[in-house]
Amino acid sequence: MPGFRDECAVFGIWGDPEAGRMAYLGLYAQQHRGQESSGIVTLHDEQHLHHKGIGLVGEVFDEDNLQRLQGTAAIGHNRYSTTGENLITNAQPLTAILKSGPVAVAHNGNIVNASLLREELIGQGAIFQGTNDTEVVLHMLSRNSNRDFIQCLQDAASRIEGAYSFTFLTNDCLVAMRDPYGFRPLILGRRKLENGKEAVVIASETCALDLIGARYEREIEPGEIFWATNQGEFSKRVEKNVKKLSQCVFEHVYFSRPDSIVFGKSVYEARKSMGHELAKESPVAADLVIPVPDSGVPAALGYSIESKIPFELGIIRNHYIGRTFIQPSQSIRNFAVKIKLNPQTHILKGKSVVIIDDSLVRGTTSQKIIRMIRQAGAKEVHFRLASPPSVGSCFYGVDTPKRSQLIASHKSIDEICKFIGADSLAYLSVEGLLRAVGEDGRGFCTACFTGNYPTDLYGLDRE
Amino acid sequence: MPGFRDECAVFGIWGDPEAGRMAYLGLYAQQHRGQESSGIVTLHDEQHLHHKGIGLVGEVFDEDNLQRLQGTAAIGHNRYSTTGENLITNAQPLTAILKSGPVAVAHNGNIVNASLLREELIGQGAIFQGTNDTEVVLHMLSRNSNRDFIQCLQDAASRIEGAYSFTFLTNDCLVAMRDPYGFRPLILGRRKLENGKEAVVIASETCALDLIGARYEREIEPGEIFWATNQGEFSKRVEKNVKKLSQCVFEHVYFSRPDSIVFGKSVYEARKSMGHELAKESPVAADLVIPVPDSGVPAALGYSIESKIPFELGIIRNHYIGRTFIQPSQSIRNFAVKIKLNPQTHILKGKSVVIIDDSLVRGTTSQKIIRMIRQAGAKEVHFRLASPPSVGSCFYGVDTPKRSQLIASHKSIDEICKFIGADSLAYLSVEGLLRAVGEDGRGFCTACFTGNYPTDLYGLDRE
Amino acid sequence: MPGFRDECAVFGIWGDPEAGRMAYLGLYAQQHRGQESSGIVTLHDEQHLHHKGIGLVGEVFDEDNLQRLQGTAAIGHNRYSTTGENLITNAQPLTAILKSGPVAVAHNGNIVNASLLREELIGQGAIFQGTNDTEVVLHMLSRNSNRDFIQCLQDAASRIEGAYSFTFLTNDCLVAMRDPYGFRPLILGRRKLENGKEAVVIASETCALDLIGARYEREIEPGEIFWATNQGEFSKRVEKNVKKLSQCVFEHVYFSRPDSIVFGKSVYEARKSMGHELAKESPVAADLVIPVPDSGVPAALGYSIESKIPFELGIIRNHYIGRTFIQPSQSIRNFAVKIKLNPQTHILKGKSVVIIDDSLVRGTTSQKIIRMIRQAGAKEVHFRLASPPSVGSCFYGVDTPKRSQLIASHKSIDEICKFIGADSLAYLSVEGLLRAVGEDGRGFCTACFTGNYPTDLYGLDRE
Amino acid sequence: MPGFRDECAVFGIWGDPEAGRMAYLGLYAQQHRGQESSGIVTLHDEQHLHHKGIGLVGEVFDEDNLQRLQGTAAIGHNRYSTTGENLITNAQPLTAILKSGPVAVAHNGNIVNASLLREELIGQGAIFQGTNDTEVVLHMLSRNSNRDFIQCLQDAASRIEGAYSFTFLTNDCLVAMRDPYGFRPLILGRRKLENGKEAVVIASETCALDLIGARYEREIEPGEIFWATNQGEFSKRVEKNVKKLSQCVFEHVYFSRPDSIVFGKSVYEARKSMGHELAKESPVAADLVIPVPDSGVPAALGYSIESKIPFELGIIRNHYIGRTFIQPSQSIRNFAVKIKLNPQTHILKGKSVVIIDDSLVRGTTSQKIIRMIRQAGAKEVHFRLASPPSVGSCFYGVDTPKRSQLIASHKSIDEICKFIGADSLAYLSVEGLLRAVGEDGRGFCTACFTGNYPTDLYGLDRE
Repeated sequence: MPGFRDECAVFGIWGDPEAGRMAYLGLYAQQHRGQESSGIVTLHDEQHLHHKGIGLVGEVFDEDNLQRLQGTAAIGHNRYSTTGENLITNAQPLTAILKSGPVAVAHNGNIVNASLLREELIGQGAIFQGTNDTEVVLHMLSRNSNRDFIQCLQDAASRIEGAYSFTFLTNDCLVAMRDPYGFRPLILGRRKLENGKEAVVIASETCALDLIGARYEREIEPGEIFWATNQGEFSKRVEKNVKKLSQCVFEHVYFSRPDSIVFGKSVYEARKSMGHELAKESPVAADLVIPVPDSGVPAALGYSIESKIPFELGIIRNHYIGRTFIQPSQSIRNFAVKIKLNPQTHILKGKSVVIIDDSLVRGTTSQKIIRMIRQAGAKEVHFRLASPPSVGSCFYGVDTPKRSQLIASHKSIDEICKFIGADSLAYLSVEGLLRAVGEDGRGFCTACFTGNYPTDLYGLDRE
Repeated sequence: MPGFRDECAVFGIWGDPEAGRMAYLGLYAQQHRGQESSGIVTLHDEQHLHHKGIGLVGEVFDEDNLQRLQGTAAIGHNRYSTTGENLITNAQPLTAILKSGPVAVAHNGNIVNASLLREELIGQGAIFQGTNDTEVVLHMLSRNSNRDFIQCLQDAASRIEGAYSFTFLTNDCLVAMRDPYGFRPLILGRRKLENGKEAVVIASETCALDLIGARYEREIEPGEIFWATNQGEFSKRVEKNVKKLSQCVFEHVYFSRPDSIVFGKSVYEARKSMGHELAKESPVAADLVIPVPDSGVPAALGYSIESKIPFELGIIRNHYIGRTFIQPSQSIRNFAVKIKLNPQTHILKGKSVVIIDDSLVRGTTSQKIIRMIRQAGAKEVHFRLASPPSVGSCFYGVDTPKRSQLIASHKSIDEICKFIGADSLAYLSVEGLLRAVGEDGRGFCTACFTGNYPTDLYGLDRE
Repeated sequence: MPGFRDECAVFGIWGDPEAGRMAYLGLYAQQHRGQESSGIVTLHDEQHLHHKGIGLVGEVFDEDNLQRLQGTAAIGHNRYSTTGENLITNAQPLTAILKSGPVAVAHNGNIVNASLLREELIGQGAIFQGTNDTEVVLHMLSRNSNRDFIQCLQDAASRIEGAYSFTFLTNDCLVAMRDPYGFRPLILGRRKLENGKEAVVIASETCALDLIGARYEREIEPGEIFWATNQGEFSKRVEKNVKKLSQCVFEHVYFSRPDSIVFGKSVYEARKSMGHELAKESPVAADLVIPVPDSGVPAALGYSIESKIPFELGIIRNHYIGRTFIQPSQSIRNFAVKIKLNPQTHILKGKSVVIIDDSLVRGTTSQKIIRMIRQAGAKEVHFRLASPPSVGSCFYGVDTPKRSQLIASHKSIDEICKFIGADSLAYLSVEGLLRAVGEDGRGFCTACFTGNYPTDLYGLDRE
Repeated sequence: MPGFRDECAVFGIWGDPEAGRMAYLGLYAQQHRGQESSGIVTLHDEQHLHHKGIGLVGEVFDEDNLQRLQGTAAIGHNRYSTTGENLITNAQPLTAILKSGPVAVAHNGNIVNASLLREELIGQGAIFQGTNDTEVVLHMLSRNSNRDFIQCLQDAASRIEGAYSFTFLTNDCLVAMRDPYGFRPLILGRRKLENGKEAVVIASETCALDLIGARYEREIEPGEIFWATNQGEFSKRVEKNVKKLSQCVFEHVYFSRPDSIVFGKSVYEARKSMGHELAKESPVAADLVIPVPDSGVPAALGYSIESKIPFELGIIRNHYIGRTFIQPSQSIRNFAVKIKLNPQTHILKGKSVVIIDDSLVRGTTSQKIIRMIRQAGAKEVHFRLASPPSVGSCFYGVDTPKRSQLIASHKSIDEICKFIGADSLAYLSVEGLLRAVGEDGRGFCTACFTGNYPTDLYGLDRE
């Protein structure tokens, strides 16, 4: 069950007569990565056209505004912004007029030294419109007197530290830039046009390519600046120093769509493997393996195959849930979970079951799920998590609760088991997780499970 | 894949201090049965309060209007209305002032002799506001000079023929009435209140009971009039004649939520059994069993267990699809299907697969799905349907295409197989379906698969 | 100042290729007569098309829905409905399917025996959707077995009593029908088409003709049924009995637009004459004549000319006021009036002024106006009303306060003068008013000023 | 008739417990100065709270967002922005975070050297969000390393040239600043609180003071910086040099509300005087003086008194016109004017009339008005304008058409008379206008009538 909120999706396309519309589709396919605002900037006759708004992609864009978004290149962004006021000011892509012309930027990630840079820039007279870290980069670009945009990007990159998968659009090029650690995914594809040529496509996940009929070519490399212009395609290193590869393992655990290829591996397969590893590490004698849908399904399939315990959809998810829901004033037990998940009494009655979920954050949802399953008549409830205990906040682009709210940061597994009311509880080990996500699993950031942060945190509060 | 549109959901509650809010939740849980309009009428101090609107339950109701829907009894309705003008006029519950006081009605089903009755009533000077068959019943009630509401209902029932599961609300009682054939489901539950008493709950499906923490008691019997007042609960037969039990088998095939108990049987179990029967009737040597999600999943699980061929989620469904979607102007192959379903290349590549879907209507969607699966690299594609060929329209409350649009009404199975591009195609037999839905399967209407309509059709066009 | 709310506007047109759009304009011009809902029904290929909604004409209609309102005949309606729930159900035109085909009706007026007729009809099984008296007429028509629509209208007219100016649209004719008393205005005009032919136009006021470039021909006579079909134009008497002509004098005092011709006389001229009469009856030595804008302006001009006291716009009206206004929480003196009216200190300071208003209902607004004028420095404030004391409610289509709320029904003129804080107060006499509205002023209903109701009130509460 | 569009309104308040709500009312009263967007920033616990939106004041603000705008100081703005994209980005107040804290600004006027300054600032790396000149000032403030806000303002003022009436809000003061020419109005008032203290109020026009019950104290002097803090009130000169007083004469001709005191004189009186002057300069023998309502009314009153020709409301204005209006597809003569203005046939028939309007821009509206008046039967139509011929664009904050569209810039008075179809045409002389607006009329900018611009135009296109 989602205890973390998604982050952001980026998209870029160059050389497509329907660039704006493709950006719309690319964002639609990546809706799961950000649902609070959406925006597109296109390049038309060396001018930028843009539209952004609060809401889902399908709410922000309509035939009218897509009609206006003419042009043969575009970038787009879905955002999971945090709170309150001025949402629209923080919605991306952000835009600015530089000496060299207009620039737009869409960002997935988090710059850990943004506050320091921001203070420095305000001290120099910069005016900030919003509160997000992406604006810092725009100001660094606008203050650079160099007229070579790629050089300006490299200069900026030398000052910023953290996670970033950027797409930029100027009046003559599309740029994709990924931090040297490779925290967040960023991929390159090609879309065949009716005239036989191919458009360049950049996206966070491959599911965006699938929808627009583009083929996956490769990842943008960690530390790579890739750009496309009318003169061709180019690639450069952000900097000489090579950083330790630190791909976000949580993309495989929960964030990415199961039908995406992330960091070169199928997310669905990675999740099934987590189920296999979990079954090997923490077997249990039970009648049924039951996923918490939808995120727990692939791991539950893996666990079932490995353990040979039959798989059953013992909990049904209601997909008609909108984003607003009015609570009953009178209490209904476990209501908040029930509105999404309904346990099937005829399956669960008298059975000993293994429940598979992707991760456990505060424990309160798991507690309610287990309570519902027991009410439905299950004899024994064994809870299995397809990831290790969450013990640290993420500072690389994932909106996690504070450390103090992560139950595993201050309770033992036994205590958690008691708290959620399971007959037994087991997490996948870090080693098991790393085995599941690929060959030897090196090159992943596991900070949220281990507390080992690959970068300096510049004083950000780890609690 | 849904080729039929859903019909309607009804709900009723008596003796609950939060009746309006419970109706809201009951409709929310039954959203899948009707997504175009929604409405609630409550009974407060012998007055009716009501609110209805176009859209999903979550769009029609907000804190303000729920606040206004005070009272201890309520009925509600979700509608899948057809088209165009005057949607709000057809939205239910419908209301009228009778001599005996206000009455509101919510209806699931279709009255086959409605046109005849309507003409007769217009001839007598009745003014119709909308075009739906439910209004006919209201006029029959209003013209009846008898002051006993239940007697009026019986009089009306003696004239109407077809499928009806009604909830009525007057100023002193809640009524549930189901046609003698038992076409559409209608169930009775009890919700325990904080004061220890129990509220009476009526709904189309048990999933509505689950959400509000009510327990399932029994079906409203075919031909039963059940009513609750401050004096107690009562039950009567609609008429003396007993009709042939004709429960809609399509509720089990596609309409109902898998976590509901319908006609006394779990929908999920029924669908799994269809998969078992299908595997027995139409086995095939293949590497993988793959469902068309979500509706094909339970049958695919059954097929996989019976055939011992591994189950895989080889097609991933995107649940973030809103109700509006803007098409690209340039053609993208199979776009309409792709926006919902994404095949997983790494799973399908080089494999011989059995695809399981619930039903096949026009064949165009199946054609696109198979094409996508082949593009993803599948070696062989065997298509299996967990229901028999659809050969007839429904006149009992399901909005089916005309007969001429049902591919199985004019093409042989071989021709359909060729049309959709499968390596082999098989449907579940009517007998297999009836075995799957319960004991001996007697008592079901299978008109859409057999053309055997349990009632006179009063000249309705079967083509 | 408006203390009464407007009533309704009707419109009809026959034989115009842009009938829907002309109806829209005709309603736009008559917006002052009803601002809560608006609707149009057109006749296209013997079918009715309709659109209605809550709000101003400009809010209810847009290019899309006007585009759909094809046809060569139309009727329309603006309503000032009363309160709360189900506004849309009461919005007109109302429609019904009769044996003879579709009929739509728009009504201005009030049927005084509607409750009795309604009860009778409900007793016969009629189902009422809304609460307005117009629906009664529809039910009377639908119950009449005669196939001649005009005959049905005459039959209905023989049963209904009160004020009515109707337009009806069937599938082959446009009908205008006015009650034998002639309470409410209803006029006939002609609009020249590009092909040289003339369309027939019906409206409440001539300002509707002016906007669409039609010429005024005559009033629909009291007690006349006028209808236009493809065969020509026809006229008949509603009934043989001639009733006492009872034109609503308040149309001239306040309701109608000053640029309309009502009951054969210019409203502007009538109001100016009221000012002349008022000056003759109640002269006063003062420095300035100042209208309460906008409704008091013509009478003030007349008063100024007659009295030779200079006219000044000493109070300026703010026309940018929308329909919603948020109050300050802290008290600002006379705020509710100030938001609309601003006294001009430099004009009023040290002056003795005569304030002219059209009428006085509760007295509270006048009190605030006088207080503001004194604060602005006026030395003496003489209040003059261009109509007699309001002592009775209207039952003929005007939404007046109950009698108990009319200050003149229970206070003497001296007491009112004291209450509003004027130095002197005078009303126009009934005789003066009748002189102002035309020749000898016979033929007017003055019930709201005299309590002499021209019809039986069927037990309606006069208090 | 308005041929020019309004400009902007500013408002400011300090020391009022309902500052946000008072700003709302102050903007409401000044709605005529800007109708496209509206915004308020309040100061609450040293933090800024803000809300702005597209639309009228009554549309942008509701109880919810006013509730949130807590605080004891506020500034607000109404804007008449020009076109198209990114309206919300240009909506004011604009805000920024300076080294010294947050600052918000609302501006009425136009900075003539804004483009030059903007280019310079972009060259220094400034990022502009919108296209309005006000943002230039914010950037100048943010780049100033001085921590004294007033000093920063003086520094900025030394670089900017043109028309500006500013209100600023920081975290500890409210500032009003007016350019040394005094182009646009800016006034100071006091609002008495319930606790006996007085809040400081700043506004463009006195009508804003009237609505909130504040008293007018004085103008903010040309070249004055006035500020209020918790320590008291302060005033300074923008710069030592004194500029030639250049108050916008068009505020009196058309912009300001007639009930405002502008530049120390009543607008209503100024307009009446224009009518007197016009009658003296250009008398004509006629039967009636008729204003084009509403803006021509005061001048027509003056003309009537001076000429002793009777005043009549021969043209009635319809105030129910919304902002959108759907055109008939078929042509209706003079439709665009008719929707607002309706000539009264019974008044005009056979009469020789003098029509008084405030100004004439393109001449097309006047042409239609005259045509309508002739159709209504007028014998002779003499057109008189209460201002001189418009020959130049405004660069000081008024959105005028380009010079080439001003009919008087390329046609003689005789030619214009012919074009509009009048029997005679006369304009008020510049001298007459200056006499009307005050004593000797010195100290006014008459550039739009004379082409004499008080400042360098920095290359702005005068055509």
